[in-house]
Amino acid sequence: MKALKGACVIGQSGGPTSVINASAYGAIITALKDENITEVYGALNGIKGILNENFIDMSKEDPAELELMKYTPSSALGSCRYKLKDVDVDDTDYKRILEVFKKYNIRYFFYNGGNDSMDTCNKVSKFMLKNGYECRVMGIPKTIDNDLDKTDHCPGYASAAKYIATSMMEIYRDSTVYDYGQITVVEIMGRNAGWLTAAASLASAKGQGPDLVYLPEKAFCLKDFLNQVEAIYKEKGKCLIAVSEGIRNRRGRLISDTGKVDSFGHPQLGGLAAILAEKINKKLNVKVRGIELSLLQRCAAHCASKTDIEESFAAGKAAVENAVLGITDKMVGYKRRYVNGKYKCQIKLFDLTDVANTEKKVPLSWINKDNSGMSEKFIKYALPLIEGETDLPKEDGLPRFVNLKKVLVKK
Amino acid sequence: MKALKGACVIGQSGGPTSVINASAYGAIITALKDENITEVYGALNGIKGILNENFIDMSKEDPAELELMKYTPSSALGSCRYKLKDVDVDDTDYKRILEVFKKYNIRYFFYNGGNDSMDTCNKVSKFMLKNGYECRVMGIPKTIDNDLDKTDHCPGYASAAKYIATSMMEIYRDSTVYDYGQITVVEIMGRNAGWLTAAASLASAKGQGPDLVYLPEKAFCLKDFLNQVEAIYKEKGKCLIAVSEGIRNRRGRLISDTGKVDSFGHPQLGGLAAILAEKINKKLNVKVRGIELSLLQRCAAHCASKTDIEESFAAGKAAVENAVLGITDKMVGYKRRYVNGKYKCQIKLFDLTDVANTEKKVPLSWINKDNSGMSEKFIKYALPLIEGETDLPKEDGLPRFVNLKKVLVKK
Repeated sequence: MKALKGACVIGQSGGPTSVINASAYGAIITALKDENITEVYGALNGIKGILNENFIDMSKEDPAELELMKYTPSSALGSCRYKLKDVDVDDTDYKRILEVFKKYNIRYFFYNGGNDSMDTCNKVSKFMLKNGYECRVMGIPKTIDNDLDKTDHCPGYASAAKYIATSMMEIYRDSTVYDYGQITVVEIMGRNAGWLTAAASLASAKGQGPDLVYLPEKAFCLKDFLNQVEAIYKEKGKCLIAVSEGIRNRRGRLISDTGKVDSFGHPQLGGLAAILAEKINKKLNVKVRGIELSLLQRCAAHCASKTDIEESFAAGKAAVENAVLGITDKMVGYKRRYVNGKYKCQIKLFDLTDVANTEKKVPLSWINKDNSGMSEKFIKYALPLIEGETDLPKEDGLPRFVNLKKVLVKK
Repeated sequence: MKALKGACVIGQSGGPTSVINASAYGAIITALKDENITEVYGALNGIKGILNENFIDMSKEDPAELELMKYTPSSALGSCRYKLKDVDVDDTDYKRILEVFKKYNIRYFFYNGGNDSMDTCNKVSKFMLKNGYECRVMGIPKTIDNDLDKTDHCPGYASAAKYIATSMMEIYRDSTVYDYGQITVVEIMGRNAGWLTAAASLASAKGQGPDLVYLPEKAFCLKDFLNQVEAIYKEKGKCLIAVSEGIRNRRGRLISDTGKVDSFGHPQLGGLAAILAEKINKKLNVKVRGIELSLLQRCAAHCASKTDIEESFAAGKAAVENAVLGITDKMVGYKRRYVNGKYKCQIKLFDLTDVANTEKKVPLSWINKDNSGMSEKFIKYALPLIEGETDLPKEDGLPRFVNLKKVLVKK
C-alpha cells in the first residue's frame, strides 16, 4: 500500500465516558509522531467542528499536559449529538465535509464515539469512497453501554462497570448497618442493554451487592417484583436492588413513564428509583431509599479501570497505525483471548457497515432466572475488564485533569 | 493517676462515614495492646449492643483482616439510632448499662459517633460518675456533617468533602461537553450545616466546579435563585449548581417540603434537585438535570482522604491512651496548627458536656455574597483535610473491605 501524506482530523461525539480521551490521546500522540501525517487537527464538538472548520492544532499543546487526556473524563474536544441525514435525501453536509477535507488536505479521519457516531463515521467513509477522495476513515468506539456489536466489549464500559460495582459494595455496607430493615433501590443507566446494571452483580459476587438485579432485556412485572422484594425483606430484614433505567413491562412501556407530561408536553420520564421506592413503601410500609447513579457512572474517572484506560489508548493508537498502513472504513474493536488462563485483549478491525447502528444486548442465558443477579459467565466476562487502578495525578487531593490550550487553526 | 484494670467496650452509632471504622480500629488495636485492658469487646449496634449484651470479642479477629477496618466504610460493628431518655425521666437504660458494665467488669467505654452519640456518651459518663462506678468514658467523634462544636473539624468530613469536590469536577467535565446549553443541579447532604455543600466549591477553586452554591446557613429565595441561574446561563450557555438538602425559605420552611404527604401521611420530602430542576426548566425552557449524591457521599471509601483516615485512626488511638492514663468524660477532637505554613493536626480533648448536642455552622462571612461559592478562608480551611489517597487494597479491581468473624462473647 502506498504511503498517503496529509493532515488528519479527530473528533469526539456522543455522551461522555471516563476514558474517551484516553482513546483520543492514543490517536493524537500516534499521529503527532507519524511522518505521513502532516497536521493533527482536533475538531471541536465532533462533526460540527468539521462542518464549521473549528479545528485546533494538537501540535501546539504541551506534551505533558496532553498526556493528562488519558485520565480526564468527558470529551476534551467537545461533543455533539448531530446525526447526518441520509445521503440520498440530503447530501449538503457530505459535500461540505468533502470541501473542508480538500481545503485542509485531510487524508485521515478518526471519529471517537458510540453507536450513532459509528453511523456518522460509516456514512462519511462511504461518501469519500464513492467520490474518489482518498481519505482513510476509522471509527474509535466508546460507550459505557457496551452495546456495539462484533467487538468483545467497548472502551468506556469497564470504567463505568467498576464504578457501579464499587459503589454498590459501598452502598451495601451503608444500607445494612442498622439492625432495623432498610430497602434501597439503585437506578443504573442503559436504555436498551443491561450491561451496566449487570455490573452491579460483580458486587454480589463478592457477597456485598444487590439481592435483586433487573435488566431491560427481560420484561418487568411490578407484581412479581414486589413479591420478590417482600420475600427477601422477610428473610433478611433488608433488601438491595439494582435496576436499569430502561426496564419495560410486557407491553413494552417504560416503567419510568409516569404517563404525566411536563409543562411543555414532553413525557415525564425518570425517577425510576423513586417510583419503585414508593411502590415498595406502599406495600411493605418500610423505609425505602431510591438512588440514581446518574452522570457519575459515566464520568467518575477517579475510579476508572486501568485495563480500560490502556485498552482505550490502544484502540486510538491502532486506528492511526492501521490507517497509515492503508486500511480504511473500519472500526477498531477488541477480541478476547486467554493465554494460560489469563485474559488478553487483542485489537481487531471490523467493517464500519457491520457495526454502525448496531445494538448488542446481554444474552438472556447470562441472567439468573430469579433475577438475583448474573450467571458465572457474566462475572468471568466482566471481571478482567475492571482490573487495575487509574494513575490519574492529584493536586491538593483533587484530580489534575487536562487543560488544553485549544489553539485554533486559521480558517 | 492509678492504673485501672478491666475490660473495654467500643460501640458505633449514627449514620455511616467512610472512616468511622478507622477510628474504631485505632481504639481497638490500641486497647488490644494495652496491658491494663483485659478484654476488648465490640458492642453490636451501638448502645443497643450493651443493653442486650451483644458483644463480640475483638481479640478473636485475625490482625491482618482487622486492619482492613481502616479502609472500610460504614460501621463495621453495626450502628443504631437509639436516644437514651433523660435520666431524671427514666433511668432504666442507665441502670441496665451499669449492670452490664459490672457483670463484664467494663472499665473503659468508647463511643464512636456523631452529635447524638456524644449525647449518649455524655449521659452514660455522668451516670457512672454519679453512681461512683469507675469507668473511663471517651467519645470518638464521626460525622460527615462536620458540625460538632469545639473541634477544628470532625473525622469523616474530609472524605465526604473529597468525594463531593471530586465528583463535582467530574460532573463539571460531563455537563459542559456539548455546545448547547445544559443546567445541572447537584443536591448535597447537610440538613442544618452547609459544610458538605461548601466542599463543592473546592472544585470551583480549581476552575471546574459549580457556578452557584447554596448553603442552609442563608435563607433561600426561589426568585433570586432563578434570576441568578438565568444570568449565568445567558452569559455562559450553561450553569452548574450545588445546593444543600437543607435550604429553607425566609420563613424557615424547607424548599424540599412539597406540602404533599405520602399514603401514610408523612410529609414527602426530598427530590430537592428534581424540584429545582423543574422550576428552572419552567422558567428557561432548557434541559436541566437534577443529581442527588445521596448515600455515596458518606460511604465512598474508595475516594477517602488519607489525611482523614490517619486523623480518624489517631482519634481512636488517643481515646484509649488517654483513658488508660486516667482521663474520662471527654471527647477527642482536633486542633489545627500551622508549622512553617504547613497544616498540622493535633489531638485535643474536650469536655463531653460542651460538645453533646452541639451544632456548628459555617460562618456566614465565609460564604460569598453572590452565592458563587466560598471565600478563600474556607478553601484554606478545607484543602489540607482532603489531602492524600486511601491505601484501600483491591481484589479483582474491587475494594477489599473487612470481613469480621464477630465471635460472640458468652452472656
